[in-house]
Amino acid sequence: MATIKDVAKAAEVSVATVSRVLNKTGYVHEDTRKRVETAIKELNYSPNEVARSLYKRGSKLIGLLLPDITNPFFPELARGVEDEVQKQGYRLLFGNSDENIDKELEYIHTFVQNHVAGIISATDQAGKLNYQHLKIPSVFLDRASDGEFSVYADGKEGGRIAAREIVQRGSRKITVLKGPVHVQPAQDRFQGALEVLGESNVDFHVMTTSSFSFQEAKQWAEELFTKYPEADGVIASNDITAAAVIHEASRLGKMIPEDVQIIGFDDIPLSSLLFPSLSTIRQPAYDMGREAAKLLLSQIANKPIESQHIKLPVTFIERNTTRKVDNNG
Amino acid sequence: MATIKDVAKAAEVSVATVSRVLNKTGYVHEDTRKRVETAIKELNYSPNEVARSLYKRGSKLIGLLLPDITNPFFPELARGVEDEVQKQGYRLLFGNSDENIDKELEYIHTFVQNHVAGIISATDQAGKLNYQHLKIPSVFLDRASDGEFSVYADGKEGGRIAAREIVQRGSRKITVLKGPVHVQPAQDRFQGALEVLGESNVDFHVMTTSSFSFQEAKQWAEELFTKYPEADGVIASNDITAAAVIHEASRLGKMIPEDVQIIGFDDIPLSSLLFPSLSTIRQPAYDMGREAAKLLLSQIANKPIESQHIKLPVTFIERNTTRKVDNNG
Repeated sequence: MATIKDVAKAAEVSVATVSRVLNKTGYVHEDTRKRVETAIKELNYSPNEVARSLYKRGSKLIGLLLPDITNPFFPELARGVEDEVQKQGYRLLFGNSDENIDKELEYIHTFVQNHVAGIISATDQAGKLNYQHLKIPSVFLDRASDGEFSVYADGKEGGRIAAREIVQRGSRKITVLKGPVHVQPAQDRFQGALEVLGESNVDFHVMTTSSFSFQEAKQWAEELFTKYPEADGVIASNDITAAAVIHEASRLGKMIPEDVQIIGFDDIPLSSLLFPSLSTIRQPAYDMGREAAKLLLSQIANKPIESQHIKLPVTFIERNTTRKVDNNG
Repeated sequence: MATIKDVAKAAEVSVATVSRVLNKTGYVHEDTRKRVETAIKELNYSPNEVARSLYKRGSKLIGLLLPDITNPFFPELARGVEDEVQKQGYRLLFGNSDENIDKELEYIHTFVQNHVAGIISATDQAGKLNYQHLKIPSVFLDRASDGEFSVYADGKEGGRIAAREIVQRGSRKITVLKGPVHVQPAQDRFQGALEVLGESNVDFHVMTTSSFSFQEAKQWAEELFTKYPEADGVIASNDITAAAVIHEASRLGKMIPEDVQIIGFDDIPLSSLLFPSLSTIRQPAYDMGREAAKLLLSQIANKPIESQHIKLPVTFIERNTTRKVDNNG
């Protein structure tokens, strides 16, 4: 397929000139413009299928609302959404809600005012806000599984897997870090872990954490080993918290995974670079974003919808903060 | 200031009902609607100043183009942009260019078609693309300092500081990881480091890395210690690469910072959670985003502009991958 560089070469002009012709901005000599247009036609150039449709009908917008893009779980999710909507000729209007209902409402208003074709929202307020009355399609992503349309990961099963793996690999005094109460997926994974630990022959403690912030993660990790110095297993509420637990355990001179095993949740990109690299429950963040976009775009296009609720599987990623099964199974 | 919850309480309805009234969507009984409207008036409620202006004039859009939101440097940058434009009543149209000129051009087209009031772009293609011909204000952020309006960090000085600190703290065989050639700030920081190392009485090697990807960072870190096993200091191209170097050095049983010192670049949120926590050159990503937004909004509002090029200072963040000066100075 021809690129803008090919067009520039064929027309013997710069890329900037081709861009000016395409954008209809800035001065371009009539002869030059014709040469560029001829090259575009001859090479059958369009930036891609999307762009062609954009020229025809103008672009369309999707509203995307996330709690906070600086939480490393969300960029992958956003990327999945963007790649899919972009492929289908849509663009993203993007906002962070900070889990604040007024801010969320304000964004929804703006989305509607900007005539978005649909909204994808990672919201904890699905019940309280009136997405279903907006008269435009919406999909809840990650946070709420109770909407009319939703895409989320199987957090409960994730919690079960984490507990099973850490017990099977030999931990007997386990601390579970419970994530923020208002975050449904955090509660699901906590419940799943509890379910398995309750049936196991191990001691366990629960420590509640009230956010997923970097600053606080460090404090919780310190508190954890102060309160439970004998902990030989930690099921963290997410990978950020797990990173803080690795840091604190290393600082205290504990051997990982010999003295203490640690399992995270999410599998953010940096998890494999931690030392030891983090064993974690992987949520397919990018795929979740894509599936949400597909589900929304199917609604918009009135295509048949197989399932209104898409629950994606989670998987245990075995790295080096857990012991090998052969040695401890 | 009154919140939506206060309004709901005063009108004795649910938050969802208040939202329906505000959004003018969904059925609300006439009496209920009046009660809500009275409460809104009595409490002088509006989601905030921004929302009030939105009701009056409809929202306005800013286009934001980043290379890739999944690179952990960019979420903070995006957050800074969003917080500032949101404060001033604007919303973000957001895209990832993947450093692909066709994709970038396509996004610029879409931004224009959606009547954005201005564009903020972290682009490597500033020279090739015709931002200056768009007839709408634009600001180059982070990547290009040669546009008409730009906001960036002092990468060269950052490189100098990194080299000075690592030499002063005792490294004598230093490997410099040079970032991708097409990324201007990476080259600036590399040049800065080179300048200082060239004048110092130390051995140094340069290893070129071609991207900032997580996957490749690990390979470069392995290559580094294979090629230069005697390296006692590493100036990494960014914090991701530095994390990979910490990982590999730890895996090889090297003591950090005793055997090898490591300095990163960026100060992404996770850097303080690494073990040892990463000494790095901090770029004020959030502030860079805010300053870019302010500069753009000043153009849009025809306000006087003090400086078209804003170079923000970088700072050395001393953590635990470098030795203490007292012991080695």
